Amino acid sequence: MEKTVTLAHGAGGLETALLVKELVKLFAIKNTPGGTGLRELEDSALIPLGEYYLAVTADSYTVNPIFFPGGDIGKLAATGTINDLAVMGAEPLAMLDTVVVEEGFPLEDLSKIMNSMARVLEEEKVALVGGDVKVMPKGALDKIVITTMGLGLVEKNRIVRNSGLKPGDVIIINGTVGDHGAVIMACQAGIEVETSLVSDCAPVTKAMRIALEVGGVHAAKDPTRGGLAMALNDLAKKSGVSILVHEEKLPIREEVIAYCEMLGVDPLTLACEGRVVLGVDREVAAEIVEALREKGYREATVIGEVIEGRVPRVYMRTKIGGTRIVEEPRGEIVPRIC
Amino acid sequence: MEKTVTLAHGAGGLETALLVKELVKLFAIKNTPGGTGLRELEDSALIPLGEYYLAVTADSYTVNPIFFPGGDIGKLAATGTINDLAVMGAEPLAMLDTVVVEEGFPLEDLSKIMNSMARVLEEEKVALVGGDVKVMPKGALDKIVITTMGLGLVEKNRIVRNSGLKPGDVIIINGTVGDHGAVIMACQAGIEVETSLVSDCAPVTKAMRIALEVGGVHAAKDPTRGGLAMALNDLAKKSGVSILVHEEKLPIREEVIAYCEMLGVDPLTLACEGRVVLGVDREVAAEIVEALREKGYREATVIGEVIEGRVPRVYMRTKIGGTRIVEEPRGEIVPRIC
Repeated sequence: MEKTVTLAHGAGGLETALLVKELVKLFAIKNTPGGTGLRELEDSALIPLGEYYLAVTADSYTVNPIFFPGGDIGKLAATGTINDLAVMGAEPLAMLDTVVVEEGFPLEDLSKIMNSMARVLEEEKVALVGGDVKVMPKGALDKIVITTMGLGLVEKNRIVRNSGLKPGDVIIINGTVGDHGAVIMACQAGIEVETSLVSDCAPVTKAMRIALEVGGVHAAKDPTRGGLAMALNDLAKKSGVSILVHEEKLPIREEVIAYCEMLGVDPLTLACEGRVVLGVDREVAAEIVEALREKGYREATVIGEVIEGRVPRVYMRTKIGGTRIVEEPRGEIVPRIC
Repeated sequence: MEKTVTLAHGAGGLETALLVKELVKLFAIKNTPGGTGLRELEDSALIPLGEYYLAVTADSYTVNPIFFPGGDIGKLAATGTINDLAVMGAEPLAMLDTVVVEEGFPLEDLSKIMNSMARVLEEEKVALVGGDVKVMPKGALDKIVITTMGLGLVEKNRIVRNSGLKPGDVIIINGTVGDHGAVIMACQAGIEVETSLVSDCAPVTKAMRIALEVGGVHAAKDPTRGGLAMALNDLAKKSGVSILVHEEKLPIREEVIAYCEMLGVDPLTLACEGRVVLGVDREVAAEIVEALREKGYREATVIGEVIEGRVPRVYMRTKIGGTRIVEEPRGEIVPRIC
């Protein structure tokens, strides 16, 4: 380990994974009996409960700016936690939130943020059952940090694991790539964001239900910090397979590409906050894409496939016909993206 | 509401309660069906699961200093969350933690903190099943904030509710009052803490098990932020009773009294982090105190009793024979106490 915490440790790429690996070693009990946890490090941990698993997840949100085109830190925190439950196949049931806020923070803004959170929970029929409020003295915190913890239930035969990809599976995404990351990056750089581009911040519960209803879903993940590059590498590693992505099939908005070129960032490393990557049985792939499109995910599309891979890797067939490796992102990427 | 967040909003007293009341109004779904949550605002929320309740709780820790006599922010976060489960009668099962840390924070300190957390979890046989790490740029956060979420199970007939106090009940505490608060307050004031005084930071699971084994426990609460004054007022309000405390019976260390006099703070408003206030049936009170003392809680003692009270109030019979009202604490008390 290096000697101090760096921004890269929080960027959700390779350095984050290495730090987490070190910290996880300190904890002797990594799961409840029959459940999953720190060994698997999936989007939610699972605790067995009769015919069900209880899915549980926790995330802290430090996004800067706290209000951004398409959402705010409250909406983001609620959706992020709901999505970590949904991608496991779970139905979100309840949430807790803690708010750590700086002395002098406008109460009106706090109300707005909590209201955004409340709207998401109400639409998703998720109860807020508890939480905490702490205040740090002026200068000890830049505005606000929100932490959300989610609980969901999933029938044991409906569970979707990160390790479920099989060679031959097809990779689907339910919408465009990198919108949230591009919006935040542009805001942080002081670039005026075009009105056509907003964060994709939204629950993926509906997309998951549509796909699960068709069936044949082998793995799912929301590509947040570290973007599609991190999510696909993570799925490939946990499943012991490789993934081939077709660049020409990736749905990326022109504005996102423009900001990425301007600021020198790979759109595949940019966080999405309302997207899910699905690894599905080849036989049902077209049906799932069609169902998603019919029900409002107009940009849902196949982006690649799962292939054998003794060393799990993510490859990209480029538009000009070559193939390159898509590495786990490294370095700072965009700080405080979520 | 005032216009901006103040330190008092985070102090755990009256202002915190008022702010939380406002924020809670925004959330439409305040509990899961048959469970408890934002209406009850107990130490844990309850989610019914067959013969059991799942108890869930979340807290953020912002304590300053992060290392203090008797513990550190990691030990504090693990014990605080375990204690919020234990006082409901629940057996802690699993925890999640999120770490938000400042860029430049020493990795060795992060390891120490996580190790303290791990030791508590291991001793308590609680699994850490998930979490998150975020980094904020230098200057955007004073060192580190840790958030912990705990899950526990409690048999429906073993549940201990904040609303369970009955007139005639006896109030017991398992140890001295205000040690944690006095230590943190002294550290913040730059006073060298006497080696005889350390934070009482410790799980209360053992004390709860001892009391529950005897039986007759009607209510329990860990007096953290806002101290004994807040905890007793909260129990009195939720139970619709009054409480009479005998000043001469309160176990308070001389050093704690000395710091409180020096800094002008009421020891009853100082946080404890390893204490539980029990409201128990009069018939078993002596047996519970004896059992607690035998099993290591040498300062366990009766401190008062529950009386009828149309307007729920906490009274203190003073050493000189008068009676005063113990109000819910107001104002800043000690910032970043936990």
